[in-house]
Amino acid sequence: MNEFYATERNEIASDWFVDLSTEICSTFEELELELPSSQQEDIKPGQFSYRKTTRKPEGDKETGGGLMAKMVAGKVFEKVGVNVSTVYGTLSPEMVKVLNKRKTIKKEQSSFWATGISVVTHLNNPRVPAVHFNTRMFATEQEVWFGGGMDLNPCLENTKETARFHKALKDICDKHDESYYLKFKEQADKYFYVPHRERARGVGGIFFDDLDSGHWEKDFAFVRDIGNTFLDVYPSIVSDLQEEEWTPEDKEKQLLHRGLYTEFNLIYDRGTKFGLVSKHDPEAVLMSLPPLAKWA
Amino acid sequence: MNEFYATERNEIASDWFVDLSTEICSTFEELELELPSSQQEDIKPGQFSYRKTTRKPEGDKETGGGLMAKMVAGKVFEKVGVNVSTVYGTLSPEMVKVLNKRKTIKKEQSSFWATGISVVTHLNNPRVPAVHFNTRMFATEQEVWFGGGMDLNPCLENTKETARFHKALKDICDKHDESYYLKFKEQADKYFYVPHRERARGVGGIFFDDLDSGHWEKDFAFVRDIGNTFLDVYPSIVSDLQEEEWTPEDKEKQLLHRGLYTEFNLIYDRGTKFGLVSKHDPEAVLMSLPPLAKWA
Repeated sequence: MNEFYATERNEIASDWFVDLSTEICSTFEELELELPSSQQEDIKPGQFSYRKTTRKPEGDKETGGGLMAKMVAGKVFEKVGVNVSTVYGTLSPEMVKVLNKRKTIKKEQSSFWATGISVVTHLNNPRVPAVHFNTRMFATEQEVWFGGGMDLNPCLENTKETARFHKALKDICDKHDESYYLKFKEQADKYFYVPHRERARGVGGIFFDDLDSGHWEKDFAFVRDIGNTFLDVYPSIVSDLQEEEWTPEDKEKQLLHRGLYTEFNLIYDRGTKFGLVSKHDPEAVLMSLPPLAKWA
Repeated sequence: MNEFYATERNEIASDWFVDLSTEICSTFEELELELPSSQQEDIKPGQFSYRKTTRKPEGDKETGGGLMAKMVAGKVFEKVGVNVSTVYGTLSPEMVKVLNKRKTIKKEQSSFWATGISVVTHLNNPRVPAVHFNTRMFATEQEVWFGGGMDLNPCLENTKETARFHKALKDICDKHDESYYLKFKEQADKYFYVPHRERARGVGGIFFDDLDSGHWEKDFAFVRDIGNTFLDVYPSIVSDLQEEEWTPEDKEKQLLHRGLYTEFNLIYDRGTKFGLVSKHDPEAVLMSLPPLAKWA
């Protein structure tokens, strides 16, 4: 590890993402313990299993990795993945291409360091919306910035819960900067769109790819608050909807919606692309894929 | 339709692909009538339903389309798609990028004309391999070439049937050119590979992306023979294996293998990419996706 990698700032950021992941996992396991099954019998409360993940070495140099927490076949969660990783090394041309928003990454062979968290849920009850949440810090030798987003993916409309999700995001954005919410909501609408289907993949949320106000502390405080908001709003939506009744037709819609979700993730998602071209552990990169999906 | 589009050669080629699709559909429907169910009860023989497909117009100009034949929930076939299409118009920069093998397509705004057939099967019985078959003719104002391929996708090894599939392809290649088989088999091994999983998606077959010997008649005869070989070998493999017994573990392996198949098709497949960037009917482009797939 050279000086660029091992800064106090990097350590603070990666520690935060690890702490957040621990909290998310324990909150989700509490939901499994507290909530009833959803029209299914004999399901034990789900528990996370953990596996270390490794990015492919560059020659003989290690390039970081992370921890993948996965819960499958729970009472509430059919599958959840919570990934944290801290990866570093040299930017390849393919990685630069995926990161093409940053003007300073023109030079290949630049060193990078990145840390982040990524959460994706797939629920048993089709009336409970799936969610995606991701925040990260990215550093090159020239710059440091944050990125992330959170979007709700119901397969059946629920105006009330959707409004609640958006309001929580608006409130936390407004606390930091009154220009954030509108901008980040619009970026989410643009990002979480499936062009070939000419439709949104879900009901959106916020997305920011390139946050660098010039004040690292300020930006990091915002990113932390986004994480706390996720912990605040999503488990609460899940609790409220877990006992909603659903039909086989609802389940069918859910499985088809997961097909759409898969299309987005594999064709368009930049996080997935970056994960694959940077040769991170494919199981971790693709942990977002649904446990079961249908195409008509 | 201008002179470039409406040549006799184009008509002969597109007629052939349509005739082949009709034969494939009737052969598959015969299998549904003749073969027993596979450890399932009360399944009626499957039948194809047909839908016209349309490429998105360029301004007010139509750009072609085709016919999608789809069978779902049959005795043998859980899902089969047989697509034929004839599309034309102006090459966009995105389309040129996907076709980057052809040196003469440097000029954007070039007219193109393409016709082809694409077949993908997903079986009820996990002991019967899925297959992908596709052949096409592509013309620009400067050139005409053929492309295509065929690969077998068993989720459980069956050395005998795999050998039979490869032998049928070798025999027909050898009939046309003794250099073809080795070359096209190697191209298939390279093409049908999933880099992020570091494995092949199936057991391969043949793949040729850019066949132009300078003799259109000769190349077209080869492409026709590949179509006839598909009709000859694949239904016969299906017949032989339909009565093989399978376990729930076999079904699980099949659903996971379909996950891998989905990853390949959405991340790497050039046909899928071209279909999407050329704005062909998304249902037709993505007809290859499995009826049901799993990710662990």
